[in-house]
Amino acid sequence: MTAKNVTPVTVVGLGSMGTALAETFIKAGHPITVWNRTAAKAAPLIAMGARHTEAVEDAVAASPLVITCLTTFEDSRVALRPAGAALRGRALVTLNSGSPAGARETAAWAIGHGARFLAGAVKNVPSAVGAPDTLLYYSGDKTVFDEYETTLKVLGGDTVHLGDEADLAALYEMAVGAMLLPALVGFFQGAAAVQARGLEVNTMVRFAGKWLDMIKSLLPIYAKEIDGGDYTDAASSVNLFLAGAAHDEDLAKETNVEAAWLAPLHDLVRRAAEAGHGDHSISALTEVLRKPARQP
Amino acid sequence: MTAKNVTPVTVVGLGSMGTALAETFIKAGHPITVWNRTAAKAAPLIAMGARHTEAVEDAVAASPLVITCLTTFEDSRVALRPAGAALRGRALVTLNSGSPAGARETAAWAIGHGARFLAGAVKNVPSAVGAPDTLLYYSGDKTVFDEYETTLKVLGGDTVHLGDEADLAALYEMAVGAMLLPALVGFFQGAAAVQARGLEVNTMVRFAGKWLDMIKSLLPIYAKEIDGGDYTDAASSVNLFLAGAAHDEDLAKETNVEAAWLAPLHDLVRRAAEAGHGDHSISALTEVLRKPARQP
Ligand SMILES: NC(=O)c1ccc[n+]([C@@H]2O[C@H](COP(=O)([O-])OP(=O)(O)OC[C@H]3O[C@@H](n4cnc5c(N)ncnc54)[C@H](OP(=O)(O)O)[C@@H]3O)[C@@H](O)[C@H]2O)c1
Ligand SMILES: NC(=O)c1ccc[n+]([C@@H]2O[C@H](COP(=O)([O-])OP(=O)(O)OC[C@H]3O[C@@H](n4cnc5c(N)ncnc54)[C@H](OP(=O)(O)O)[C@@H]3O)[C@@H](O)[C@H]2O)c1
Repeated sequence: MTAKNVTPVTVVGLGSMGTALAETFIKAGHPITVWNRTAAKAAPLIAMGARHTEAVEDAVAASPLVITCLTTFEDSRVALRPAGAALRGRALVTLNSGSPAGARETAAWAIGHGARFLAGAVKNVPSAVGAPDTLLYYSGDKTVFDEYETTLKVLGGDTVHLGDEADLAALYEMAVGAMLLPALVGFFQGAAAVQARGLEVNTMVRFAGKWLDMIKSLLPIYAKEIDGGDYTDAASSVNLFLAGAAHDEDLAKETNVEAAWLAPLHDLVRRAAEAGHGDHSISALTEVLRKPARQP
Repeated sequence: MTAKNVTPVTVVGLGSMGTALAETFIKAGHPITVWNRTAAKAAPLIAMGARHTEAVEDAVAASPLVITCLTTFEDSRVALRPAGAALRGRALVTLNSGSPAGARETAAWAIGHGARFLAGAVKNVPSAVGAPDTLLYYSGDKTVFDEYETTLKVLGGDTVHLGDEADLAALYEMAVGAMLLPALVGFFQGAAAVQARGLEVNTMVRFAGKWLDMIKSLLPIYAKEIDGGDYTDAASSVNLFLAGAAHDEDLAKETNVEAAWLAPLHDLVRRAAEAGHGDHSISALTEVLRKPARQP
């Protein structure tokens, strides 16, 4: 183990994700200090060898590298408020979800307190933290990333710096993450339909997994269409999805599952067709989602 | 090549998918007869060696196995109407999307004309037809599946019979397919956000692909939670998604992308939290989607 591998780290915020981060560092041999608003959550980590402080400023003062994992950027600033002075000279790394604006505010706040700032995102679930393939991306102060890259890679082997602007990680986190809730609700809708027929949801898992592989294989094609602004070479057209929309409503009715959330999606497809994209690739929906006021 | 491998096949409907089906059969050495409402679309297939008939009844009469690939079940019945008598004794296989009700109607109609009926679905894009890993599933008359399994497998190596009820394939097609449009709109939303920042969409493709892998890894867990009706062991809670909802709206505002379609999804999350599922797994949304009237 090199000296870099045993950088002392402070982890602030011990929810599902923060606990996974702290555990992973402990298992990798890092001296860890933890703090959580609800102090009781630190107990299992203390049992594993973590140091715990009552005051957040003491936790921040304990390590050169401070990682926060709270619900939002605002929560992070609120929790760190008493630690303003202790932040001077430290590297602060946030690992929460949030909007680019939240990342910018937090960067300004941290830099104002004399800290170097990196904002990151864990693109996986807590149980995947520490795996060689787990993706985390960061943006902001590159000197922090370079200095602590080995330490940060303890959390996931696929660790990337996206750029110097502190809000880029949040932008990508949200842009990429935008598929999650809609895809899951689609799965739950299908699950409810299968259950309504008296069948088990696990019977559709293999098929749904292959379906996601298929969707994955389409993304580079759609990205190219959107980047090029050329939707004319359509493997699956807007009109095809329009025909599918009617079936969705039939199935929801037949299986007594709520379909209200689908109406605005179908409406986007309908508007794309009305805007002349009927025979174009479904990726032309991007043009409908972009508000006209944005055009320069 | 066995005798079974060269079963003559008729393909009715030569859109993107029907053309891919016919081409794949031709390349595999099957004698193919094709028909399409817009006859001009048959030209490339004729050039490849397909026989083309002007009348749909002649196409149906040409082969023991007739595969249709039209937009909907209703379109299939409309197109085949003049071929009612020719259907007697043949195996009719539909490969279109549609609701279970449409499959049942078409089964009754086909059986009424003395045909044996199998309803299938291609779970992939036209360019994937013929690949060893491509998934197609069928339901309905098992004797048709058994007799023509080798021929059907020409279209995709992962070919499955789901059961004797003709509407099961449509049910699974729709239940599994329910992820597609929402996931894609999520991707397009993210793409528009990244573009609003002056970045190329292709920069997010690798991350989005990994994100889909992550979602895939969650499906067996969610299926187990839904099948067991136990949502208490939550890796990602309803409340966590509720916190995320606010960020989604912030990002949409900041990047000037339309977010109206997200409101009903966020509303489902909010209602799940209000129903006491706040600390439960996000898969508890299934309970909210299922309409109460359904309960026995
Ligand atoms: N879980 C996942 O699957 C996952 C995956 C990727 C990213 N993330 C992101 O990781 C972050 C944390 O998620 P999580 O799953 O760990 O959430 P969680 O289990 O709900 O934990 C939230 C943590 O934030 C703390 N907190 C919230 N507001 C606070 C405040 N105002 N002051 C002090 N502490 C506060 C909580 O302290 P208390 O214990 O005192 O409440 C707790 O430690 C989120 O941004 C989430 O989006 C999570
Ligand atoms: N393309 C895909 O990515 C994909 C993937 C999986 C499943 N599917 C399913 O496959 C089926 C066909 O899709 P596709 O992409 O091939 O669609 P398409 O390119 O739009 O072709 C539609 C076909 O249906 C015919 N048709 C429609 N209504 C008709 C009617 N009333 N009478 C006679 N013919 C009629 C059209 O004939 P004309 O040429 O005369 O208009 C054409 O041959 C759909 O159910 C679709 O959901 C497609």
